[in-house]
Amino acid sequence: MFDMLQIGRELLALQPFSCLLGSEMTAFEPGRVTLTLAVRTELQQQFGFVHGGVLSYLADNALTFAGGSLLGPEVVTAEYKINYLRPARGERLIARAEALHAGRNLAVCRCDLFVDKEAAETLCAVAQGTITLLGRPQGDA
Amino acid sequence: MFDMLQIGRELLALQPFSCLLGSEMTAFEPGRVTLTLAVRTELQQQFGFVHGGVLSYLADNALTFAGGSLLGPEVVTAEYKINYLRPARGERLIARAEALHAGRNLAVCRCDLFVDKEAAETLCAVAQGTITLLGRPQGDA
Amino acid sequence: MFDMLQIGRELLALQPFSCLLGSEMTAFEPGRVTLTLAVRTELQQQFGFVHGGVLSYLADNALTFAGGSLLGPEVVTAEYKINYLRPARGERLIARAEALHAGRNLAVCRCDLFVDKEAAETLCAVAQGTITLLGRPQGDA
Amino acid sequence: MFDMLQIGRELLALQPFSCLLGSEMTAFEPGRVTLTLAVRTELQQQFGFVHGGVLSYLADNALTFAGGSLLGPEVVTAEYKINYLRPARGERLIARAEALHAGRNLAVCRCDLFVDKEAAETLCAVAQGTITLLGRPQGDA
Repeated sequence: MFDMLQIGRELLALQPFSCLLGSEMTAFEPGRVTLTLAVRTELQQQFGFVHGGVLSYLADNALTFAGGSLLGPEVVTAEYKINYLRPARGERLIARAEALHAGRNLAVCRCDLFVDKEAAETLCAVAQGTITLLGRPQGDA
Repeated sequence: MFDMLQIGRELLALQPFSCLLGSEMTAFEPGRVTLTLAVRTELQQQFGFVHGGVLSYLADNALTFAGGSLLGPEVVTAEYKINYLRPARGERLIARAEALHAGRNLAVCRCDLFVDKEAAETLCAVAQGTITLLGRPQGDA
Repeated sequence: MFDMLQIGRELLALQPFSCLLGSEMTAFEPGRVTLTLAVRTELQQQFGFVHGGVLSYLADNALTFAGGSLLGPEVVTAEYKINYLRPARGERLIARAEALHAGRNLAVCRCDLFVDKEAAETLCAVAQGTITLLGRPQGDA
Repeated sequence: MFDMLQIGRELLALQPFSCLLGSEMTAFEPGRVTLTLAVRTELQQQFGFVHGGVLSYLADNALTFAGGSLLGPEVVTAEYKINYLRPARGERLIARAEALHAGRNLAVCRCDLFVDKEAAETLCAVAQGTITLLGRPQGDA
């Protein structure tokens, strides 16, 4: 039987950087994905918050999976932007991304990033970006 | 004697996430910074390229230092966008960021990201974003 | 009695460029705004679609009003990004923006842009950006 | 004889919205374009500056021409972001855009926007975005 979440988790496990950071996939369906990441000291910046680069990584990855759920597995993020709303302090990051539109080669996705602290979620960043098939638009570089 | 590069390196060393990834500062002056990062397997994604999240992290951090060089050390990235141009394959990433404008609370910066392979640099991503003083615009959240 | 929509309409009417394009405000409350714009030939580009610059203008303006509804009337857009999803063909554009977070000086907002054709709305662009108080962060330029 | 600037000007003249606003092309070569726009009262917002929507329009259009100079004439802007640096007050806007990379279907471009006042140019906004072939990536919408 086709288990989309299982396939997504296997793809995520193929990314050495995702393994280094420890991200997990908790939901994956056409057009939507949820990634989570346990916060630990080595993911912080100098003020004790989660480093923006960790939030960016998680947003980028969630956008790619959301787009890839419609375009296919051979995708990369072409571009995205992220706004940080609040310092991220808590036990766990949660990234929920969805595809707003998918054409043949491009998908436009959004991602909301929450930090989970004592079982309460706070929105800490929002992202928006474009996913593209690998090897077509950019692969001739 | 005031050694700006030394101060920048000490700030970078205070970021656990930057230590985890291994980034280094090779230049720091008012309005400009250069960060580098040795590529290793655990920074890759599933196709063998450097993970976009690593490029994002480095861009974000370089933008912050470029803005902070004019606004002061207590800054964070408010937002940025990044376009990935080519898959990043090589031995070392180089992020060069500069501030285009700084007001009292905000600075707008750009960053070019190169990958160094066999001593030749290739532009692999470009970023643009806004740096803001910590604790003023966003710290009342 | 305080009529927020009326105040918003008066502010919009003070913008010569909004008058030139013909945008209207149909809803305005704390954190949310809706702007509409009747499509006419002179707002098109060479392929017969609404020019992206018109969508950008409307997104920018809606983001500013959404942020200004929380920060106060003396605001400007610091930055935003827009993704065009589909060519905009129809009788009317509708921009719905909301503030996701507002601090003392900055607000982060999103905007969905629809085109209305034969009474059916189609999402044609999405935007995300930062609104800032005028004369503080950027006014010392 | 092939006159690229002449061809660019003819394309610009086919855009009703560009005619409404009065933009002109002063340079066009592979990977680069310059657009200008005379400032007049009806392009302003309520504080007497050029409306951000006008700067956005000009940036968007310049990005498209810069990308189209490499990808061909049937292109549209897929997405871009813009940072406003300073209020634009002066006689003329100047947008200079260049393509940083072009693949088969996508080009990544940057644009610097200046305002010309008493013969001195001031940088007032910067943009970065993605240009895509029309009818391929997004045209199947």
